[in-house]
Amino acid sequence: MQDFLFGAAYYDEYMPYDRIEEDMQMMKKAGFNVIRIAESTWSTLEPKENVFDFTHIDRMLSAAEKYGMMVIIGTPTYAVPAWLVRLDETVLVEGRNGRARYGYRQNMDITNPTYLHHAELAIRKLLGHTAGHPNVIGFQVDNETKYYGNTGQHIQAMFKEYLKQKFVTTEAMNQAYGLSYWSNSVADWDDFPDVSDVQNASLGCAFEEFRRKAVTDFLKWQTELVKEYKREDQFITHNLDYDWESIGPWGHHDGRSRGLQSNADHYDIAGNLSLAGVDVYHSSQKHFTGVEISFAGSELYALKHQPYLVLETQAQAFCETVPFPGQAKLQAIANAASGAMGMMYWNWHSIHNGKETYWKGVLSHDFRENPTYLEICEAGAELKRLAPMLNGYEKRNKVALLADNEALTALHWFPVHRDLRYNDVFVKYYKALYEMNVECDIVFAKSLDFERYDLILAPALYSVDEDVTDALRKYVENGGVLLSGFKSFVTDKNIKVSHQVLPSGMNDVFGVTYNQFVRPEDVTVNGVPAEYFMELLTPSTAEAIYYYEHPYWNSYAASCKNRYGKGASYYIGYCPRKKQLKEYIALALKDAGIEKRAEEFPLIIKERCNGKKKLQFVMNFSMEPQAFRVDAEAAGVLSDMIYQKDEQIVLEAWGYVLLCYDNAD
Amino acid sequence: MQDFLFGAAYYDEYMPYDRIEEDMQMMKKAGFNVIRIAESTWSTLEPKENVFDFTHIDRMLSAAEKYGMMVIIGTPTYAVPAWLVRLDETVLVEGRNGRARYGYRQNMDITNPTYLHHAELAIRKLLGHTAGHPNVIGFQVDNETKYYGNTGQHIQAMFKEYLKQKFVTTEAMNQAYGLSYWSNSVADWDDFPDVSDVQNASLGCAFEEFRRKAVTDFLKWQTELVKEYKREDQFITHNLDYDWESIGPWGHHDGRSRGLQSNADHYDIAGNLSLAGVDVYHSSQKHFTGVEISFAGSELYALKHQPYLVLETQAQAFCETVPFPGQAKLQAIANAASGAMGMMYWNWHSIHNGKETYWKGVLSHDFRENPTYLEICEAGAELKRLAPMLNGYEKRNKVALLADNEALTALHWFPVHRDLRYNDVFVKYYKALYEMNVECDIVFAKSLDFERYDLILAPALYSVDEDVTDALRKYVENGGVLLSGFKSFVTDKNIKVSHQVLPSGMNDVFGVTYNQFVRPEDVTVNGVPAEYFMELLTPSTAEAIYYYEHPYWNSYAASCKNRYGKGASYYIGYCPRKKQLKEYIALALKDAGIEKRAEEFPLIIKERCNGKKKLQFVMNFSMEPQAFRVDAEAAGVLSDMIYQKDEQIVLEAWGYVLLCYDNAD
Amino acid sequence: MQDFLFGAAYYDEYMPYDRIEEDMQMMKKAGFNVIRIAESTWSTLEPKENVFDFTHIDRMLSAAEKYGMMVIIGTPTYAVPAWLVRLDETVLVEGRNGRARYGYRQNMDITNPTYLHHAELAIRKLLGHTAGHPNVIGFQVDNETKYYGNTGQHIQAMFKEYLKQKFVTTEAMNQAYGLSYWSNSVADWDDFPDVSDVQNASLGCAFEEFRRKAVTDFLKWQTELVKEYKREDQFITHNLDYDWESIGPWGHHDGRSRGLQSNADHYDIAGNLSLAGVDVYHSSQKHFTGVEISFAGSELYALKHQPYLVLETQAQAFCETVPFPGQAKLQAIANAASGAMGMMYWNWHSIHNGKETYWKGVLSHDFRENPTYLEICEAGAELKRLAPMLNGYEKRNKVALLADNEALTALHWFPVHRDLRYNDVFVKYYKALYEMNVECDIVFAKSLDFERYDLILAPALYSVDEDVTDALRKYVENGGVLLSGFKSFVTDKNIKVSHQVLPSGMNDVFGVTYNQFVRPEDVTVNGVPAEYFMELLTPSTAEAIYYYEHPYWNSYAASCKNRYGKGASYYIGYCPRKKQLKEYIALALKDAGIEKRAEEFPLIIKERCNGKKKLQFVMNFSMEPQAFRVDAEAAGVLSDMIYQKDEQIVLEAWGYVLLCYDNAD
Repeated sequence: MQDFLFGAAYYDEYMPYDRIEEDMQMMKKAGFNVIRIAESTWSTLEPKENVFDFTHIDRMLSAAEKYGMMVIIGTPTYAVPAWLVRLDETVLVEGRNGRARYGYRQNMDITNPTYLHHAELAIRKLLGHTAGHPNVIGFQVDNETKYYGNTGQHIQAMFKEYLKQKFVTTEAMNQAYGLSYWSNSVADWDDFPDVSDVQNASLGCAFEEFRRKAVTDFLKWQTELVKEYKREDQFITHNLDYDWESIGPWGHHDGRSRGLQSNADHYDIAGNLSLAGVDVYHSSQKHFTGVEISFAGSELYALKHQPYLVLETQAQAFCETVPFPGQAKLQAIANAASGAMGMMYWNWHSIHNGKETYWKGVLSHDFRENPTYLEICEAGAELKRLAPMLNGYEKRNKVALLADNEALTALHWFPVHRDLRYNDVFVKYYKALYEMNVECDIVFAKSLDFERYDLILAPALYSVDEDVTDALRKYVENGGVLLSGFKSFVTDKNIKVSHQVLPSGMNDVFGVTYNQFVRPEDVTVNGVPAEYFMELLTPSTAEAIYYYEHPYWNSYAASCKNRYGKGASYYIGYCPRKKQLKEYIALALKDAGIEKRAEEFPLIIKERCNGKKKLQFVMNFSMEPQAFRVDAEAAGVLSDMIYQKDEQIVLEAWGYVLLCYDNAD
Repeated sequence: MQDFLFGAAYYDEYMPYDRIEEDMQMMKKAGFNVIRIAESTWSTLEPKENVFDFTHIDRMLSAAEKYGMMVIIGTPTYAVPAWLVRLDETVLVEGRNGRARYGYRQNMDITNPTYLHHAELAIRKLLGHTAGHPNVIGFQVDNETKYYGNTGQHIQAMFKEYLKQKFVTTEAMNQAYGLSYWSNSVADWDDFPDVSDVQNASLGCAFEEFRRKAVTDFLKWQTELVKEYKREDQFITHNLDYDWESIGPWGHHDGRSRGLQSNADHYDIAGNLSLAGVDVYHSSQKHFTGVEISFAGSELYALKHQPYLVLETQAQAFCETVPFPGQAKLQAIANAASGAMGMMYWNWHSIHNGKETYWKGVLSHDFRENPTYLEICEAGAELKRLAPMLNGYEKRNKVALLADNEALTALHWFPVHRDLRYNDVFVKYYKALYEMNVECDIVFAKSLDFERYDLILAPALYSVDEDVTDALRKYVENGGVLLSGFKSFVTDKNIKVSHQVLPSGMNDVFGVTYNQFVRPEDVTVNGVPAEYFMELLTPSTAEAIYYYEHPYWNSYAASCKNRYGKGASYYIGYCPRKKQLKEYIALALKDAGIEKRAEEFPLIIKERCNGKKKLQFVMNFSMEPQAFRVDAEAAGVLSDMIYQKDEQIVLEAWGYVLLCYDNAD
Repeated sequence: MQDFLFGAAYYDEYMPYDRIEEDMQMMKKAGFNVIRIAESTWSTLEPKENVFDFTHIDRMLSAAEKYGMMVIIGTPTYAVPAWLVRLDETVLVEGRNGRARYGYRQNMDITNPTYLHHAELAIRKLLGHTAGHPNVIGFQVDNETKYYGNTGQHIQAMFKEYLKQKFVTTEAMNQAYGLSYWSNSVADWDDFPDVSDVQNASLGCAFEEFRRKAVTDFLKWQTELVKEYKREDQFITHNLDYDWESIGPWGHHDGRSRGLQSNADHYDIAGNLSLAGVDVYHSSQKHFTGVEISFAGSELYALKHQPYLVLETQAQAFCETVPFPGQAKLQAIANAASGAMGMMYWNWHSIHNGKETYWKGVLSHDFRENPTYLEICEAGAELKRLAPMLNGYEKRNKVALLADNEALTALHWFPVHRDLRYNDVFVKYYKALYEMNVECDIVFAKSLDFERYDLILAPALYSVDEDVTDALRKYVENGGVLLSGFKSFVTDKNIKVSHQVLPSGMNDVFGVTYNQFVRPEDVTVNGVPAEYFMELLTPSTAEAIYYYEHPYWNSYAASCKNRYGKGASYYIGYCPRKKQLKEYIALALKDAGIEKRAEEFPLIIKERCNGKKKLQFVMNFSMEPQAFRVDAEAAGVLSDMIYQKDEQIVLEAWGYVLLCYDNAD
């Protein structure tokens, strides 16, 4: 696709009066070329059972045709209409606190037969109606799908069936999950109990994994339905999301994308899509670092090793995120630099209705031009110029950061510290790399896709299958560099702690063992406080980098380096502060033969190559001007300037430059 | 009524032994002339269905007759007896967390037919028994009535019926409430869903307003019953209460009256009463400022523009509120100064039983004289001398503070900030006026009673009907001064955000517009930090008072003044600190031609006139002596002293003086 | 018993592979002589209804025989198997939030007939199978039994029956519990309501007391069953536990033993056991003070005035509690010094299964020797040498600290302060004594066992029967010294506040009265801030020790001393800081003729006598060496050294010495 897809979600359904003509003109002025419509509007699409009303969709398709706008159609299934609940209240999900009540979105049981039956009818009607339209370029199945805390009878029966298939005998299950503890073992499948209040983490994590699989299956099922209707040239995507962190002092549960999503398996879901799509909501104003944008790029691009869609990102959103001048443009450039092939705001206009009213869009409630809109117009023009330049360039990272949904879930059950969950560790590692300008892929451990990398970081990889340890061992043997640390290689995939010496199955690779761990109190490592947690390491073949500094724990190593096969490994037994973590990463980069750039955040550098040439985005994520020295002779892609090696470019606040180097390495 | 009603709630039902004679004597010694009895004692009044026992009431009426004590009879309906729950458990209110369980008070469904049936029987019996007694001066219907989180089937059916009447078609409702969002629209009234977990704020706020109306209707219904029995000379009142703020470190939900009550509509309720009554619980000891007493006066007096009853206020109450010497007298004077015609302690004795045991009364659990009781005796004597002096004097304030229950509720759904709810803003404004010695009326916006004022303040008036904006515009046109600000004039009465330029329908009056707003971070206004929230104002006809001080937001105004018609308006786009708010109020007072006094808190001054003379209460709310200079020649009402203009009176800690000026202006 | 019982809980059921031989050898190396087995393993013992499998138990008994290990058998009833729940779901306890769901332990209704029926069968089978085995020395009935928030219909019916028996008429109950408040009185037993949301504290506390009694009855019932099988030489014990305080930043509810247990009545339970047993989990690392160990000793030894078993204590447990070198040995010595006759770690190995996985045992998950294990081996050797020396020695304390479960419960309903519950006060008193090296007994008030003491401390003894006040008065009359204070002697046993002058029934003994109390703000006593709460004391016959320092409260005494009969009493009207509390205790000790030692914490001294000789443990609970001067010529029990009077012994960090003095006084 030549053009960068630039646009917004548009909901004619929610408009207080007819805005289509005026909005289309304003969107064109902003350089928009795509709108995303129809997701979550089931009650207007099908106001009564089997009565369909395509008014809003037809209005949008006509306008799109008239204004040459591409359209992505979302299936409406993530918010159920009231008539469906009246028809069968079991459509509403049953969770630990009972059955959900009507009102919210994402409150349904995605395995419920009634829900699935009516969802299928609606999808078929919608696809039949829209798939043939020339402006429709693709489909989004559902939206931000999760399992919504489902502990209902239906999914429990499915889970039990799955366990029977998996284990055949209850004894095998008892053993694998360690159910004897506190009398949880069962001798007859008929005794298999309600698991809504399960206390055994192995069984609990298995139930969570099973429900993530239900999400994957549900989306695959929608995908198969869509395939029956769609044209060859139309894509199928889904809007993946991340863990949500609250923004500002609202006490709301969402607002910022941060860390892995524990209720959906991005890796499995993406396998069934033709195009990966994602939500990116990020900090702004003086907290705008770009890290969330980069994180999404590191994961989404790596999922298919191809560009992806940012299906939702903020225009104004909250009080805390109305962009400073310059930030809207930098946001657009940063997404392109991170590997996105498109970026859509959520949403075009701010909602007048009484929900998400202050998750503001491109336009405020008064529909007038505003400073954010006007800067978005500039961003649109910039992206239009930029898009053709990117053709043929690919991102190719040498560093991987290993992710794992089972480790994430297991460490919810066994948090290292109240303030140090899996995502805290994972994001800390990512942030260190990001700030060091080490571009990386976020790779799921179960993909076993290790050999393409020179350095792999595996933080908090708590639970592992043997195929993962085997693959990692082989990777190091063959010359790879591996950096891992505390709470990694502890349990098997069933979340039973290994009775082998820890790190289990990898203590030869790391050349280190431990069997005690403590909460650091008055402990430093090379003068820097150790925080949250520390393992008392005893090196075998490894060489200690640092020992703990403490009256009693000073005989134990804090961090070690080991040679293994043709490669090298690092084991960090505690949670280092970010600055110290960067020092370890720098050592590992050197071992991996990867040159570390001198520039660090707030100067962020992202590159891609086409085999011959190299494109380099240089971005300033700060309120102060920043100077950058050009690596070699380079052309300014958006500026038609030519720069000499070491020439200094001063980037203004939130400024950027895009350079093209002749030599790709 | 000549006498100031001074007394206490008295519960013979709760006494560990017969205390009537001794207590009557102690009350007489304290100058009490009224007792309030019978509310909340249903289980002793009617121990079994239709079996009535008037023992306790008869004992009290006899004693009252013997000792010349007036009596206020409360209907007992706010705590249901166990037999009624056994008869029909649906008497207990059903809320979001299921049906209430027996035990607490205020746990019933006030729309439940069984409850209403038995309440009616009990009220008729009680009124029939007591209305003819010569010492009974009036009745209190129920107590602190609210809707108790009712989401039961019965009230939901009533609500649906109300919506059908109001909108006729579902389409009209969908449109008015914006239900299309997240598929909440309905095409058939039969599909109208359970609203106990409603997510749409418009529908949610409508349900809250409907339930406030149920409270009004319930009290009106009781009033009508009482009218069938009462004599002409007997009044009907109700004990209104405020929002409750916890006091001290207890984590209890109540203890201090603060801000508007969201679950009852004082304006509508008061319309059906012959006399307004209220709870006032306030800070004490070194935190005794008198602001809660004044707040109640500002609202209650304005409800009917006549004196009101303080039906409950604290004697000792909690650990935190046992009064310092001098405070019990000042409390009594402050209530009188604020416009009360009576004040009753809750309650006479401290409860020995296991609930509200440490919400202590005039007497401690040992029934002996104590320092608080002894000072109350002095207060009684003072009030007895004071009461005749007040005859013929009226309060007449030139400043109004606009209140609105719908704005309050809507801002619960859309809080400006976790720590800045509607009541936080409203109370901040009230406190500023109080501390500046600007006496004001608290006036409900829907009363449209604006023309009697010279200055109106309208903080956080989030949702407004056109009749309110029309009346305010006309008020300014005619020469009034209006001061308002952030989060005002945003939505219509259905809590749908306006798609007009904000402040909606008033941007001409204020001469200012905005469509972006942010969380202040490192922002000052005239050197003082802006907090919580700020709107980025662009003046049209208005003149900026201050601009925001910030690298990016400094092109926007923080506060503006505008001339409109014959009047003037002020718009403050952010939440100023109290001191800065006072500066804006001072400007507005000047525009309104109201002279600002030099004295500020802790010297508090309250006045009233009889057309010719002016009474002036001067009170010292502090532990330090305070000097006051007399405005003009004046007589000391309680002291028989004559003061010259500018003569200095030194008020001791918690002291007061009452002056009479010949000239009323 | 000659040997000190030293060992661990051992669960063959949870082992990932057969470890018995290797573990037995490791335990023998550590000097273990006892294992505790079988509690909580119902689902492996009885995998299907009435199908019993003794494999694991038989393996353990055989190994015990082979290795000469004693065995304590626990009944498995505190975790129910899934088949039992499937059989009858009412086995699961119903609490305020509904019926418990399957998964956790301690989730059953201990009064449920189905549960009791199957528990009885299992106990009979287990006892029949094991009681004859020579290595079995005793039985533990259930584990840490509580009533698990039971508000189910069954226990409510039992409670109502109990009330009918107790009061006969509802009127008597209404009066005793003050139910008239808020219409809670009932005129017919059939109207007696659901008490799961009871608001009346008297009725609420009665329900709690009744449920504690259900715990006692349940354990007595198990005891009776066991007696039908056990040999004369076998003991019956139970694992009592304390209130649980969270350790570290986990947010878990448990981890550290602290203060009285509100859900079980240790005094009543112990009456039915032949040997008292207890959990002791304590702070460690730099927070290791030994106070929890001493607290358990003070209570458990006093329950039967004989040695007790520490059935569970930590080896490693959490990150925060892995012991520093020296602490494992000191822990063992401190338990012995406190009067324990045995100490068992929980548990031998760390759990690989997914629950309590990081409540680590003696061995880590890798089953290898580790530093903690190795030090435990040294502790075992030390205890082996020590045990015979203790024969014939007894602990005999002159100071008692009065405990009361009803006061504890009542002050849950009426907390003095959010941060000052009963246990906070009680533990503060205990800690003061501990740090002053005043050995005391924790004595339950209802035991009326006062005359054996010279000084009694009664903190926060909120609710009392007349027999307690009578006994205390007599105790003082006869020459005893009593120290009590705020919130003591306030209510009767029904938690109705006294209408007598406070301290109720004791104001003559203390020579002081009060009827007002306040929250201290800017108040000091002898220059030290008063915190949380203060009563405004007026001495009658007493002499004030200090007055409050405050502008208004300075006329009231803060603390008083009184002579009464042949004795003396102290009343402290506020919550003093620990240092100031120690000053009051020092005064009382002097009055009681008890010599106060010069040494304070971190030097902890514990003694016992055999009539002639005195054993003295001297322990250093700190990271710094501490010097101790020997009281008189003494022999080092473990060292064969002879010390002269005043000779200085320097104890290393976490070090100890055991001395034997010829003269017992």
